[in-house]
Amino acid sequence: MKNETIELMMAHRSVRRFQSREVPEEVLTRILDCGCRASNTGNMQMYSVIATEKQPLLGQLAQLHFGQGATAPLFLTICVDVHRYHHWCRLNGCDEPYDNLLWLLSATVDASLCAQNICVAAEAEGLGFCYLGTVLYNTRAIADLLSIPKGVVPVVTLCMGYPDEQPAQSERLPLEAVLHRETYHEYTDDDIRRLHRIREEFPFNQEMVQKNGVQNLAELFTRIRYPHKDNVAISKTLQEFIEQAGFMNF
Amino acid sequence: MKNETIELMMAHRSVRRFQSREVPEEVLTRILDCGCRASNTGNMQMYSVIATEKQPLLGQLAQLHFGQGATAPLFLTICVDVHRYHHWCRLNGCDEPYDNLLWLLSATVDASLCAQNICVAAEAEGLGFCYLGTVLYNTRAIADLLSIPKGVVPVVTLCMGYPDEQPAQSERLPLEAVLHRETYHEYTDDDIRRLHRIREEFPFNQEMVQKNGVQNLAELFTRIRYPHKDNVAISKTLQEFIEQAGFMNF
Repeated sequence: MKNETIELMMAHRSVRRFQSREVPEEVLTRILDCGCRASNTGNMQMYSVIATEKQPLLGQLAQLHFGQGATAPLFLTICVDVHRYHHWCRLNGCDEPYDNLLWLLSATVDASLCAQNICVAAEAEGLGFCYLGTVLYNTRAIADLLSIPKGVVPVVTLCMGYPDEQPAQSERLPLEAVLHRETYHEYTDDDIRRLHRIREEFPFNQEMVQKNGVQNLAELFTRIRYPHKDNVAISKTLQEFIEQAGFMNF
Repeated sequence: MKNETIELMMAHRSVRRFQSREVPEEVLTRILDCGCRASNTGNMQMYSVIATEKQPLLGQLAQLHFGQGATAPLFLTICVDVHRYHHWCRLNGCDEPYDNLLWLLSATVDASLCAQNICVAAEAEGLGFCYLGTVLYNTRAIADLLSIPKGVVPVVTLCMGYPDEQPAQSERLPLEAVLHRETYHEYTDDDIRRLHRIREEFPFNQEMVQKNGVQNLAELFTRIRYPHKDNVAISKTLQEFIEQAGFMNF
């Protein structure tokens, strides 16, 4: 039994090089409408989407993402937003009780569900995209560039446009590695070795290990791509941003 | 121009009452495969999915979600998981550098993208579901029930099955309320009032305001549904869980 939606999702690949063609307004509206249709906590929609398409802002934003998405005609910066909700509460003579950890996390989930619906719809429209995790690295500079106020935290960035490349699909772990039946099952050393074999033997990964002169794939990630020193430094600036955004009031 | 996938997403509604019919194994596999196809940071897949289907565990889990999903034949508890990744690092003689705030947040996004792909695929298969935000309320008890180890944080719960109801679709804010062009725009009081009118006038919301004897919809949320006192108490236990899970090592 064929299902168009499932086939579309199974064919996903991230796109990093784009045609200069802009995303038409009606396409943007359609994919964002799909985003907002995703489930969200209490239907409170505590998120905002910033669509950046004009120079020089677009180029500056790509710079803050270390040059990623440099050819993309559209950046979507998707934010946790209690600022707008509190404004509505205030106008109704109510408390403003959502600037805390619970709502930071639940709105991060909601913003992400919105983002993923946008992405599935985008691929249905022939667009390509790449998630840029670097939004959590340069959060303060990105917030300043986009005039983001207190109570708003950018948590997801997408660069998007019509693809100018047809990248190969990346590998995934076998489902068995991710899925636990009934309760969480502990992995044996043999499980871990067996389940990661597909990843370690994936040609692109082997090539990257060789290029970077490391012993194995785990070393590539832990020493070169995402080392401890960077993770600690970024976690500190991120925590500072979250505090200044007002989410540690409890 | 009709697009099946976009129509499916635009028709979304949460389902809270389910038939007793189980989710067939091949359907579960298919929707989880779609989940794992979602983008994720560095293709590190730092998430786990726990599928609970058997009694008495299933009923106990529903209880920890305050009875929500009581008729669902399937609960998916989707977790941030650096535990498995660290195990692989250790076997390769590497650091275990991902137990910190950066990776808690980026893996929360990744777990959510996975969850939303599962949901879109589930609806494509004729299933219904409801997200249960209560996973962040009773996190310790849920983690204990599901034998969740240190380094793993449940962030999304879905109850799922074949629908036994056809609920009305809930309202959404106009896209204008959520979308910012180029940079974040500040809202005037009039903007906020105008943009929330559709929500305040939505019949179901008016009914709930009346039933609960409050002045307006904002009061329903801030005094009855999600009041400050609860948010603070839950944020504290959540922070404690996150610390014990090992994510504040920086």
